[in-house]
Amino acid sequence: MAVQPTAGLSLILRLELQNSTATFGRLASTIGEAGGDIIAVDLISAGKETVVRDITVNVYDQAHGKKLVAALAALPGVKVINVSDRTFLMHLGGKIEVHPRVPVKNRDDLSMVYTPGVARVCEAIREDPSKVFQLTIKRNTVAVVSDGTAVLGLGDIGASAALPVMEGKAMLFKQFAGVDAFPICLDNKDPDAIVDIVTSMAPAFGGINLEDIASPRCFYIEDRLRERLDIPVFHDDQHGTAVVLLAGLLNACKVVGKRLEDLKVVVVGIGAAGVACTKILLHAGVRNIIGVDRSGALVRGEQYDNPVWQWYAEETNPEGLRGSLSDVIEGADVFIGVSAPGILRVEDVKRMAKDPIVFAMANPVPEISPEDAEPYVRVMATGRSDYPNQINNVLCFPGIFRGALDCRAREINEDMKLAAAEAIASVVGEDELSETYIVPSVFNKKVAKAVSRAVIEAAFRTGVARRERRDLLEV
Amino acid sequence: MAVQPTAGLSLILRLELQNSTATFGRLASTIGEAGGDIIAVDLISAGKETVVRDITVNVYDQAHGKKLVAALAALPGVKVINVSDRTFLMHLGGKIEVHPRVPVKNRDDLSMVYTPGVARVCEAIREDPSKVFQLTIKRNTVAVVSDGTAVLGLGDIGASAALPVMEGKAMLFKQFAGVDAFPICLDNKDPDAIVDIVTSMAPAFGGINLEDIASPRCFYIEDRLRERLDIPVFHDDQHGTAVVLLAGLLNACKVVGKRLEDLKVVVVGIGAAGVACTKILLHAGVRNIIGVDRSGALVRGEQYDNPVWQWYAEETNPEGLRGSLSDVIEGADVFIGVSAPGILRVEDVKRMAKDPIVFAMANPVPEISPEDAEPYVRVMATGRSDYPNQINNVLCFPGIFRGALDCRAREINEDMKLAAAEAIASVVGEDELSETYIVPSVFNKKVAKAVSRAVIEAAFRTGVARRERRDLLEV
Repeated sequence: MAVQPTAGLSLILRLELQNSTATFGRLASTIGEAGGDIIAVDLISAGKETVVRDITVNVYDQAHGKKLVAALAALPGVKVINVSDRTFLMHLGGKIEVHPRVPVKNRDDLSMVYTPGVARVCEAIREDPSKVFQLTIKRNTVAVVSDGTAVLGLGDIGASAALPVMEGKAMLFKQFAGVDAFPICLDNKDPDAIVDIVTSMAPAFGGINLEDIASPRCFYIEDRLRERLDIPVFHDDQHGTAVVLLAGLLNACKVVGKRLEDLKVVVVGIGAAGVACTKILLHAGVRNIIGVDRSGALVRGEQYDNPVWQWYAEETNPEGLRGSLSDVIEGADVFIGVSAPGILRVEDVKRMAKDPIVFAMANPVPEISPEDAEPYVRVMATGRSDYPNQINNVLCFPGIFRGALDCRAREINEDMKLAAAEAIASVVGEDELSETYIVPSVFNKKVAKAVSRAVIEAAFRTGVARRERRDLLEV
Repeated sequence: MAVQPTAGLSLILRLELQNSTATFGRLASTIGEAGGDIIAVDLISAGKETVVRDITVNVYDQAHGKKLVAALAALPGVKVINVSDRTFLMHLGGKIEVHPRVPVKNRDDLSMVYTPGVARVCEAIREDPSKVFQLTIKRNTVAVVSDGTAVLGLGDIGASAALPVMEGKAMLFKQFAGVDAFPICLDNKDPDAIVDIVTSMAPAFGGINLEDIASPRCFYIEDRLRERLDIPVFHDDQHGTAVVLLAGLLNACKVVGKRLEDLKVVVVGIGAAGVACTKILLHAGVRNIIGVDRSGALVRGEQYDNPVWQWYAEETNPEGLRGSLSDVIEGADVFIGVSAPGILRVEDVKRMAKDPIVFAMANPVPEISPEDAEPYVRVMATGRSDYPNQINNVLCFPGIFRGALDCRAREINEDMKLAAAEAIASVVGEDELSETYIVPSVFNKKVAKAVSRAVIEAAFRTGVARRERRDLLEV
């Protein structure tokens, strides 16, 4: 499937141009012919003989970038001084920093934020441990914890190489919901050790966002941490994806006029995200879900090594369908893919029920290309930003933690996730809703607020909020 | 010993004053007579009958505050609406926050700082692990790690109650040296577990500042971490104190015209700080140090349960002096106290050598009050901000980590600490030097720069810097 140029690979080319021979028109047309997309042009210096310009160009990939640079270097009067990559430039020195909330200007300030004044604050917390929520960063701070075992589509790349993702996540927490998040990248793959470490460091945090931890260990780690901690523990790859998927499905059902309880849903890829999507759908009222993995449909009565698959087979597939994806897709209303590129064929889509809904969320290349699926599906969603209906966790995690922190929730439970999904769906108005607009943009500012409000409501309703409603109104 | 009012206890009194009966003059004189110190007066609202004012007042302690409030409430026409404590107000919601270094304004930004662009950055680090220093927060970030077992003078108050101190430390790191620091408060007292935890979480950090960990476990934890990690590990209670003490002693020796190698030094309190002070003094050239703890002078040949005391007895006290502090103080040039209030008597000071130098660093109440000591000592230093010559770690830790991070040092070694002490001492010019000015103010901006420069120089000299000198000049 063809991949568009994205700013994920955006080059800044510093060029020295001979005034007599190199025209900007020639330069621009050469870049255009080579398939590059000019984003910006800056003049760095101008002399009688030459000018130096920075040309920012989006290209497909690194090979494409090299070809384009070679084409420019071959032009008469053009000298390539430097090629830099905007993405790498944005990462230099890291993407987050830690700031004092109040300045320490003088001795008076120092004696309050540090010794001797701070001692009274410490004693107040020792006397009443719940005060840690008022008097420290715990109130607004989330740990983004990863062991680097399942980072994006890159797999087990280790803690250091995972750090840029966790920093990016921390940026988004702040930008979208004002949550302070800090990356904890653990150079340790022992699930019990990870549970112990996160439990030990929990005092400073009001929530734990687990990230990019491989399946099935992610289930074990999350379950143990939820047992041991009294703050929310949320594995975003599971629950963030599930919440946004459900939001999209709620609106897709409105578009096609079907009810959740009548749907036949096929889920492909029974890892972290697939299991979480299935759980939230069951909780939301979907009855007929068939899970498919490498060995085909999961069926009750079979023996699976993976204990999660065992659970899955017991709780789903009420008709006991067997066989491959092609075997079970017949008459399905919804396809949900959290698996691998290209596994859904056009022939499979044709055999789905009327008004098929396809969530092809494999990243960066979906289970079926939107272009191929388009003639046969009614609603199509992917994980990509360059097609309509992007299922992006950014719609969920900032707002869900904002809400959980604000009401001091002990956990993020199923009702809170459901409420978050409904809130995301509700941001798309009935009058705006269409086949190509089932989830709001990640930059829609209403999303985090709507999610947070709904999550707080659900937390109070289910009794996991530790603040009083009236205190919350004061904030 | 009398304690001055400090901003450590600063109250904001909101008062409603009847215009007809309550005059501001009467109010101010009542506060003055009660021993309060008016810092600021703000008008909140003014009506025909009444005005509401916020009066900020420094008081000695909580009991004093209550007394003062009662005196005001007893005045005719004065109603106390609210009393709030400035220190607690400054702590509400915590003292630090995490910010994106670049904003995420649009899809283009998002695709560079997060998926899909971030994947290339992750891969670059996986291919060349040293790139984690360029492309992540590791370059500028320090963990402030505590188990809450020896917090200030409060003892073992636990991880949550220790958090305000660690947040304060993080503020100072940023404010004084631009270092990003984040508090890691561990609800775990097993030294081996702490070593494992800190080792596991090290990928995101360029340095580890250990803080407020009880002796002797602090020695074990620091030693193991130094063996296992390739980033600096620095227990500030030990080395920060030692560096600033040495800075003060270098200048005190100039004032009295003595040489380090000729000094007889008595150190009282052989815990974390006492051991570190002794080590740095030995490294700096002091030969005759006698350590005193509860059981008296530590002497070679005796058996001690504490393995650090065993080491101490072997390496110090060349004359094998025995007995109490009073026994060994005879003829000493320098007293160094990191112990308990009031343990140095005036009679002991009188028996010291000519021009006695006394570092009475117990906090908040020194080993001898400056007022009592003043007639008999030549140079006196304490840990307090309200007397001259404050030995404050803030003079050391920001600059020493700034330098270590900038040259990407593998460790902070003895030469780097010595260089830091000399740099702190050098900020006080020869012409400024006096009995009451042996260390610079913590707000002197030259300090962190001088320390950082000297530390980098020492790191290159001793071969622990991982950057090239020429790269450093470019930054």
